[in-house]
Amino acid sequence: MNAEIIAAGSELLTAERVDTNSLFLTAQLNDMGVEVVAKSVIGDDRDRLAEAVRAAVSRSPIVILSGGLGPTEDDVTREAVALALDRKLVLHTEIVTQIEHRFARMKRRMSEINRRQAFVIEGADVLPNDRGTAPGQWIEESGVVILLPGPPHELKAMFERQCLPRLRRIVPENVIRTLLLRVTGMPESDLDQLISPVYKKYANPATTILAGANDIQIHLRARCPSVGDADALLAEVGAPIEALLGDKVYSRNGDSLEMVVGEMLHKAHATVAVAESLTGGMIGERLTAVPGSSRYFLGGFIAYSNSMKVELLGVDPQLLAHFGAVSRETAEAMAAGARRRTNSTYALAVTGVAGPGSGDDAAPVGTVYAAVADAEKAVAFHRQFLGDRARIRAFTTQMALDCLRRRLMARG
Amino acid sequence: MNAEIIAAGSELLTAERVDTNSLFLTAQLNDMGVEVVAKSVIGDDRDRLAEAVRAAVSRSPIVILSGGLGPTEDDVTREAVALALDRKLVLHTEIVTQIEHRFARMKRRMSEINRRQAFVIEGADVLPNDRGTAPGQWIEESGVVILLPGPPHELKAMFERQCLPRLRRIVPENVIRTLLLRVTGMPESDLDQLISPVYKKYANPATTILAGANDIQIHLRARCPSVGDADALLAEVGAPIEALLGDKVYSRNGDSLEMVVGEMLHKAHATVAVAESLTGGMIGERLTAVPGSSRYFLGGFIAYSNSMKVELLGVDPQLLAHFGAVSRETAEAMAAGARRRTNSTYALAVTGVAGPGSGDDAAPVGTVYAAVADAEKAVAFHRQFLGDRARIRAFTTQMALDCLRRRLMARG
Repeated sequence: MNAEIIAAGSELLTAERVDTNSLFLTAQLNDMGVEVVAKSVIGDDRDRLAEAVRAAVSRSPIVILSGGLGPTEDDVTREAVALALDRKLVLHTEIVTQIEHRFARMKRRMSEINRRQAFVIEGADVLPNDRGTAPGQWIEESGVVILLPGPPHELKAMFERQCLPRLRRIVPENVIRTLLLRVTGMPESDLDQLISPVYKKYANPATTILAGANDIQIHLRARCPSVGDADALLAEVGAPIEALLGDKVYSRNGDSLEMVVGEMLHKAHATVAVAESLTGGMIGERLTAVPGSSRYFLGGFIAYSNSMKVELLGVDPQLLAHFGAVSRETAEAMAAGARRRTNSTYALAVTGVAGPGSGDDAAPVGTVYAAVADAEKAVAFHRQFLGDRARIRAFTTQMALDCLRRRLMARG
Repeated sequence: MNAEIIAAGSELLTAERVDTNSLFLTAQLNDMGVEVVAKSVIGDDRDRLAEAVRAAVSRSPIVILSGGLGPTEDDVTREAVALALDRKLVLHTEIVTQIEHRFARMKRRMSEINRRQAFVIEGADVLPNDRGTAPGQWIEESGVVILLPGPPHELKAMFERQCLPRLRRIVPENVIRTLLLRVTGMPESDLDQLISPVYKKYANPATTILAGANDIQIHLRARCPSVGDADALLAEVGAPIEALLGDKVYSRNGDSLEMVVGEMLHKAHATVAVAESLTGGMIGERLTAVPGSSRYFLGGFIAYSNSMKVELLGVDPQLLAHFGAVSRETAEAMAAGARRRTNSTYALAVTGVAGPGSGDDAAPVGTVYAAVADAEKAVAFHRQFLGDRARIRAFTTQMALDCLRRRLMARG
């Protein structure tokens, strides 16, 4: 079954804003097995909006509009839909009373302009709005036309509570189950070349690959008549993909790398400290983004300058002078120093060149070393990343967390 | 003058993806004085796309399509536009040769399927693609229809180099100038109540207010026949807004708070160190996101646990026990300790409760202290923030940077 989504509002046609409501609605519709075949954003123009509604209704059995239900002249959705469906607008006195009560609760008088929100398209069901003034509307034509308010928290509540149950009566029953694998340590093109021979054979489950900063998400979405069928299908396709990727898969439930590493540290009754140069605090920030991270994260050092590497971490100035700040040896000395000074089980250190323009032949921009230390030894890993300062720092942070994950896996 | 934008591609109708090309195109068109009145995303369906093109062309003198120019069956933009405009598709042998050459340079043979990319709508100008295989097309009908490739780096280069000069011949001349004020330290609603009596009087310049984490951007966009007129108009509206906001405005050119603070430190030949508790490294990460920050940023401490506050920063354990980790006194002692241990001009420290669930009556979730120390003294500031862990940490980081900015301003 197909659906179309129309967002009304000139503010969504600026260069800064995107219509996020349609992403929420798409996810919800997809979960029911409904496909979104077109979406649009129309400015505050009644006739243009009416034309878009007319076209959508002629093509698709479900049409959802968001926005333009407010009290001002700019809010033209009610009128546009009435025009498109050739129906009258009727003043709903009960809604006027509700809006008056809402204002009374806020100790304010309702201004006349708010009466606009009480006009309902002839034959429509009114969808009450728990979180705002403008009610939604549900109209059954040859298909269904749904009017929802624009503010996302109002739209979400109204859609989930009032539209989903009604839609389920219309939409043929289907179950959607998702498998989400998260992977780090390989480029998207290599990953795709490796696993596409598996997933390309299947239209169901649908496969989506999203690449972030040294982080790839593989979404498999199976649509089946039953949960059992869907899970069996996900296992059939997911298992060979996981086998191909091996330990590059760090999460099977959507958890971030810092959550996975945190859980491993917690289970091992271990603690960690950090020593950051080029990342300037980003590793600490990621680790402490997880609630409860104080159980395993002690703290650390931002050793941005050479003198800080010596003074805060006790790196030997001669070693620093001999091998340079961006070297395997310095990374290992930083990690060992952070561990010694915090008495943590592990310490994670990074040093490198984030750029722009500060690299040299020995260590060009993008050269990175990450080291993991425990009580016995410190071991460094080298990577060469491409891109701008922000990308190199984000890639480095992810790589460092993955070094710790691998060290914790080896512990077994 | 009005424009409409149509993105072709089923991958843009998922719950994860947004059409970012339209944001770039909107900014470019707005800069020429062209308004975008509608935009849409249409899946890989030739007839549906043709219908959308037909409707757009009937309403707007500029219609820009992106995507669907590749070599596969899914790429239906050429056919859809030909259908909508009732024109033929013609094989352009020169393009075939160019694509063959491109493949030859990569030491590969062109597969037959790539010939699809050499079909041109009758009467169209071909727009060469420096960065990919699929050429664009420029069609003059009653208005203009432009076909651009979907990959953003291909689309941007083609639009800037080949479409802008052609559009300038069509679009009535207008200049757009922007004033961007960045503000911190007040809620969006308070700011709007304060300044809306000024900007509401003007339709030109157009005012947009965007709120981030303890950070508000005010965009004023003036559209005038000359630069002089536009700048005069921006001064007329901008000056009273700036007067109302006073030193809450930290930037007039789009610079981030970390850039502004960095520039002030650099000019004062001063250095800074940080001591972070609840932010876990976020302040250091922001300060070091700026290229060249090593000129003034020395490094710092992530003192997440109480013992780290004592050991890394030399906070007196009795003071910590007496006032608690989340207190004015501890924040000041952390800042003083970080300054002493790094020998920096200034140190910035934060302590607080990011939640969830770790607050108590004395320091509920969202309680934050930030302190700035110099050689003479350390002074702490208190805030109570609302929201989840991520929001409280982001607000705290911004507030701490602003404390440093105010300290540097006071220095004069």
